[in-house]
Amino acid sequence: MSYKITVIPGDGIGKEITDAAVEVLKTVDGKFGLGLAYEYHDAGGTAYDKFGTPLPQSTIDACKASDAVLFGAVGGDKWDDVDPALRPEKAILGLRKNLDLYANLRPVKVADALVDYSPLKPELVRGVDLVIVRELVGGIYFGEKCESEQHDGTERAWDLENYSVPEVERIAKLAFATAKLRRGKVTSVDKANVLATSRLWRRTVAKVAEEHQEVELNNLYVDNCAMQLAIRPTQFDVIVTGNLFGDILSDEAAVVGGSIGMMPSASIGTCTSLYEPIHGSAPDIAGKGIANPMGTILSAAMLLRYSLHEEEAAKAIEKAVDKTLADGYRTPDLWKEGFSKANTEEITRLICQRI
Amino acid sequence: MSYKITVIPGDGIGKEITDAAVEVLKTVDGKFGLGLAYEYHDAGGTAYDKFGTPLPQSTIDACKASDAVLFGAVGGDKWDDVDPALRPEKAILGLRKNLDLYANLRPVKVADALVDYSPLKPELVRGVDLVIVRELVGGIYFGEKCESEQHDGTERAWDLENYSVPEVERIAKLAFATAKLRRGKVTSVDKANVLATSRLWRRTVAKVAEEHQEVELNNLYVDNCAMQLAIRPTQFDVIVTGNLFGDILSDEAAVVGGSIGMMPSASIGTCTSLYEPIHGSAPDIAGKGIANPMGTILSAAMLLRYSLHEEEAAKAIEKAVDKTLADGYRTPDLWKEGFSKANTEEITRLICQRI
Ligand SMILES: CC(C)[C@H](C(=O)O)[C@@H](O)C(=O)O
Ligand SMILES: CC(C)[C@H](C(=O)O)[C@@H](O)C(=O)O
Repeated sequence: MSYKITVIPGDGIGKEITDAAVEVLKTVDGKFGLGLAYEYHDAGGTAYDKFGTPLPQSTIDACKASDAVLFGAVGGDKWDDVDPALRPEKAILGLRKNLDLYANLRPVKVADALVDYSPLKPELVRGVDLVIVRELVGGIYFGEKCESEQHDGTERAWDLENYSVPEVERIAKLAFATAKLRRGKVTSVDKANVLATSRLWRRTVAKVAEEHQEVELNNLYVDNCAMQLAIRPTQFDVIVTGNLFGDILSDEAAVVGGSIGMMPSASIGTCTSLYEPIHGSAPDIAGKGIANPMGTILSAAMLLRYSLHEEEAAKAIEKAVDKTLADGYRTPDLWKEGFSKANTEEITRLICQRI
Repeated sequence: MSYKITVIPGDGIGKEITDAAVEVLKTVDGKFGLGLAYEYHDAGGTAYDKFGTPLPQSTIDACKASDAVLFGAVGGDKWDDVDPALRPEKAILGLRKNLDLYANLRPVKVADALVDYSPLKPELVRGVDLVIVRELVGGIYFGEKCESEQHDGTERAWDLENYSVPEVERIAKLAFATAKLRRGKVTSVDKANVLATSRLWRRTVAKVAEEHQEVELNNLYVDNCAMQLAIRPTQFDVIVTGNLFGDILSDEAAVVGGSIGMMPSASIGTCTSLYEPIHGSAPDIAGKGIANPMGTILSAAMLLRYSLHEEEAAKAIEKAVDKTLADGYRTPDLWKEGFSKANTEEITRLICQRI
């Protein structure tokens, strides 16, 4: 065995969709002889129920000791009344910090077969092929915060938005490197007309750009970017931005791309990286076998590409997914008149057959 | 004369569009006998060129002494190299602070004639009728900031996001009052799963909601709201949110609504309120007489409604704009085969004729 993958199913539909992705990984493994081994660990509400914490140290250690992490989803109303510090989503924030997952890559590429699923008009969506590079371990997410204090005679709360030069340099370098392998365009998104942090961000990105003359750099204010993503999403190649703006824009971009159930993501770390679909744990349909596993399956393809450098195997998965869609199969979330409905297991088998 | 209106044309197309709105105001004045008087003042790059500051004290004083402010637009690359503290957009931030314009109201209502102009599919856009209530004088916009400091051996910059209970109460009350006059639904948008400020925001809005049992309150995370605005914008009635999230979401919502040239806004102050279109100063088309004045004209209607309580006159303007569009007239930004093209002056005359 040459690669160790930690699988974290998490909560809700997490088990079904990671099972599906592992089945697909086993199929490419059989074909390409990759030598993949899997180790399962808990996180989220499931971990809280078992161990009293959403992110056991054993899970963190296992992730660090593996070549890559495949993550399902966490969360559910079941844990709404749990102490905020122990809620399922703390698992994901904790993994980001502990594994130093500094960059979240969210490709939005619309399969021809799915152009009609976007809320945007088809002519605006056809040909969209962008990737959002979101800083993931800094900014206001991890800045100092205060839940309540007396200030000028009233109660207030605060959070510190902040970025250092090295933090911005690191993510900017990754964005430029990514653009070089694509269409050579970086759009850096900030709010430099209002925020000091954005001004440091902008001048640091500009400095990194000097070492990448072959890449074109544009700056865009976040409000304008939120507009442009809806007006003309094809204009973008690589979008690089901070943690908070990235959270908002990457969800908006995902919607533009059509079905959220299809969208993969990679969170790049300094030692191990983590791969997960962008959708949530959908507790309402958990256990019914109808979840769309394709976001997770495409995340597994990213895992092969970025962590294991098995480009051929990654492409094999992506092509098999495209082919399955082109052949007219749809999971219930995507089903329309005239297509063949396939549940989680069926679509997984159809994808495996096409590998 | 019974009402004093301060008109601030600003930069770029600001003069053309405020001229158009004033002409429309004069027409309703003639019909309804409102007794409107106008006083013109400078702000933005134009003021910087004349007085060395984008916001002269005389402009602030005039605004305070009037019943309402009609604002055009400010900005332009011409002032790109000006000291950041003196850039045109400082005028708008300065006016917000000096007039305590604590709430920005951005209605997004899609005229039947313009459903096709949205990047979203017509079936998603038809019937959209929402208003974003954005807090405008607090949050990270006006929190303490630091352009550069040494911290842990590196250079960093920071901005303080913060809200006090009274600040949130004030904007929440306005949102609930607004919802009561509409469909009775408030969606409060925050990032309470990450930010302490959002947790104070959420619990304060919940407290205000207790006094408004007849209004339905929902909480939504900002990333989810960015998705929902694109997926199903008709679900919203009143959206209330902080300064930064409001900046992003209101621009996204405007795009959903179709033409940015059509969108008005009201910034509600404790003594005087300010009305402006949401689009910018468009220096590239300034002076050509082709700018779409309808966003400013509809802002003038909001001025009549909120500051002068002249509801009938406000409605007369809104109906005249709708009628002009329904009759097939379009400014160049909206023109398509089969419609009659009308420049700034012509569309203004057509609207006046329909009052
Ligand atoms: C669950 C939440 C803390 C998280 C975030 O805000 O980063 C999620 O929205 C995401 O984008 O992965
Ligand atoms: C010009 C800029 C400072 C301003 C803001 O961010 O508030 C603008 O985007 C707006 O929304 O009015």
